[in-house]
Amino acid sequence: MTKIAPLSGFPEWLPGQRIAELAVLDRIRATFELYGFAPLETRAVEPLDQLLRKGETSKEVYVLRRLHAADDGPADDALGLHFDLTVPFARYVLENAGKLQFPFRRYQIQRAWRGERPQEGRYREFTQADIDVVDRDTLPLHYEVEMPLVVGDALGGLPIPPIRILVNNRKLCEGYYRGLGIGDPEAALRAIDKLDKIGPAGVAALLTETAGATEAQAKACLALAEISAPDGSFVDAVRALGVTDPLLDEGLAELVRVVEAAAAHAPGLVVADLRIARGLDYYTGTVYETLMQGYERFGSVCSGGRYDNLATSGTDRFPGVGISIGVTRMLGLLFGAGALSASRPVPTCVLVALPDEDSRPECDRVAAALRQRGIPTEVAPTPAKYGKQIRFAERRGIPYVWFPDAREVKDIRSGDQVTADPGAWTPPADDLRPQLLSGS
Amino acid sequence: MTKIAPLSGFPEWLPGQRIAELAVLDRIRATFELYGFAPLETRAVEPLDQLLRKGETSKEVYVLRRLHAADDGPADDALGLHFDLTVPFARYVLENAGKLQFPFRRYQIQRAWRGERPQEGRYREFTQADIDVVDRDTLPLHYEVEMPLVVGDALGGLPIPPIRILVNNRKLCEGYYRGLGIGDPEAALRAIDKLDKIGPAGVAALLTETAGATEAQAKACLALAEISAPDGSFVDAVRALGVTDPLLDEGLAELVRVVEAAAAHAPGLVVADLRIARGLDYYTGTVYETLMQGYERFGSVCSGGRYDNLATSGTDRFPGVGISIGVTRMLGLLFGAGALSASRPVPTCVLVALPDEDSRPECDRVAAALRQRGIPTEVAPTPAKYGKQIRFAERRGIPYVWFPDAREVKDIRSGDQVTADPGAWTPPADDLRPQLLSGS
Repeated sequence: MTKIAPLSGFPEWLPGQRIAELAVLDRIRATFELYGFAPLETRAVEPLDQLLRKGETSKEVYVLRRLHAADDGPADDALGLHFDLTVPFARYVLENAGKLQFPFRRYQIQRAWRGERPQEGRYREFTQADIDVVDRDTLPLHYEVEMPLVVGDALGGLPIPPIRILVNNRKLCEGYYRGLGIGDPEAALRAIDKLDKIGPAGVAALLTETAGATEAQAKACLALAEISAPDGSFVDAVRALGVTDPLLDEGLAELVRVVEAAAAHAPGLVVADLRIARGLDYYTGTVYETLMQGYERFGSVCSGGRYDNLATSGTDRFPGVGISIGVTRMLGLLFGAGALSASRPVPTCVLVALPDEDSRPECDRVAAALRQRGIPTEVAPTPAKYGKQIRFAERRGIPYVWFPDAREVKDIRSGDQVTADPGAWTPPADDLRPQLLSGS
Repeated sequence: MTKIAPLSGFPEWLPGQRIAELAVLDRIRATFELYGFAPLETRAVEPLDQLLRKGETSKEVYVLRRLHAADDGPADDALGLHFDLTVPFARYVLENAGKLQFPFRRYQIQRAWRGERPQEGRYREFTQADIDVVDRDTLPLHYEVEMPLVVGDALGGLPIPPIRILVNNRKLCEGYYRGLGIGDPEAALRAIDKLDKIGPAGVAALLTETAGATEAQAKACLALAEISAPDGSFVDAVRALGVTDPLLDEGLAELVRVVEAAAAHAPGLVVADLRIARGLDYYTGTVYETLMQGYERFGSVCSGGRYDNLATSGTDRFPGVGISIGVTRMLGLLFGAGALSASRPVPTCVLVALPDEDSRPECDRVAAALRQRGIPTEVAPTPAKYGKQIRFAERRGIPYVWFPDAREVKDIRSGDQVTADPGAWTPPADDLRPQLLSGS
């Protein structure tokens, strides 16, 4: 028998942490719905060959097998657990295109799994909160503008460190590399993506090696990657590098619109950062990464971008743009640092004290009357001495104890005790439900 | 490449159905929280040997393997997807006993997986909504009384067919079989559990075969299983069968309390039905099954019971009681019958019309003002003719279109159009969010 123990990479929260997580998810969901995104869930599994279309992530996939199925390795129709929510969403859109209205805006808050080596902020099982917009054949740029604003609104209202969304544009980079005369712009992009890991000298070597860049071209690529601005001023900085290309112009114009609209909506939220590449091959326009203040070294907590060819089948083509909040990564970091918690580990606002077991029906009626008006209530488990019943509430952070015999309710923090009618008494709004707190 | 197609047993809803599912889950969650149950999620996987403790379900387990792990069958530390939420919860309680407050009340709304042959109302991937209470060493009976009342409150407020919770008590049955002189009461219980499938004659044969019953004893077992009552009158019916045993008395007393408290709380919700056995070996007291009116032939949509020995390790013992709403089964049946839907397939309440692309910033400001006050709002995707923009709203069931140039809002169902200020206008409460409807 396996020892009962945590599994590395499969985080589980304590009830108070789960209350905090639910408060975060509720805020994210409410914001997504305010922007008109419809909810969706997809099955947890996809045919293995669908998951392996992207090649590079194949090592991360968990394959499923029924315990008593024939024991001869993955079958042709083998299923794997999805490793993100974008690939299943693209499949869902193609499968249900005839039943959906386009442009189709959906949010999806769901778990995904990757068999990676676990480390801080990286898990094998994790929850993502995604929004995407897809349209048939063409997709206007304003959706690329909208994505970071939704995320800013969703996370901005929470007691967590401020975020900064770094944006770039694939057309800008590819146009620039092309204008420079680099043979393999995609290889150049992949090299730049490694800047944080291997530094400028390493990237320069990689550019020469894999993208066929000369030393001067490599230097010019690095110069582009150094440009960053919270407004449209990055355009002049790029122009000053002296490279010209129509795709570069297109990318610059698109990125300016994203950055300027964001500056008008939420100053400081979005920064153009031309080193942002995103590893995934399928992005074709704006790309996003997000750093949380004080946790920058753990990498992006919210990423995405525009993809023109992910949901494509025969003549059906659904370009899209999406962004994905890494909820488990974010919360794992904040919980680990003692930087986020709930004000109590139970929903309960009132404990109805139990004078004796014969009074239980009467206590249940008091509880029912409070619940009827939306006040989370428990009845004490046993008719212990009142001191012990009050300690029961204290240990759980339950703020009020109701004494049905005296028809009184006590705020056990202040000691204030008042006469009360279960059909009329209402706690202050902040006490009704657990509150989300920064700190532990 | 696998054809893009549904996978049998892995249901996926359309956005309108997902909106309906979320409304149902919100109602269930809110009710659980009103009763003071704390939220919890466990990881989706458990060590395979933990999952196989219960033997009989081993065939249903999905085993996981990383695609590039060594290809030699399940390893010692193999992981499987959980097939219910009770086994992971029992493991969680043992693992975190030092950090939890007992009695511990938790709810858990999460997916589970079983590799069973799919059929109507039975899936390979499904969502369950569970509540459980566990305590250290002993657990008072009143929690067994409480479980069906919570479920009745949760589902009673929804536009779905009424449910009837059938309850029985393992002590009652085992005591009765023992009082009858049957050698193997557990085998007798398993035989009675097959009554719906193989009928009285089949069960009588099985009782003789597996439980060592004589013909008279088998007849007496079937007589007990025929007893059913919405109140305490079942006690006289059992007494009339002339069997006596102390465990039988205990079971009768417990079941009377469950039935009578429920009759006081919600008349008609709970019925004592002495044929209810539940297949699982771990139940030791009250057991629950639930039928939905008009869907009885699909079996129970909500089941559970008391378990004294599931969360036990060495000297630590945490008796518990729980009940589990089979959300996917319930919704699959209702959606299949066209008996449940959402009033629209998007959260959006207002579409802001777009006069021309240059007006987008102004339209975005109108949308932001409405969202600021909790009104889900989208801006039209393109500056098409207004007739086309109104049809865009119509096709999605969005009730209102806002014309920023005229400063007017139109109810597109009635045609009423009024002057409105985005900082003040409020839609009727029923229009704000999609409503849950019986019917399709």
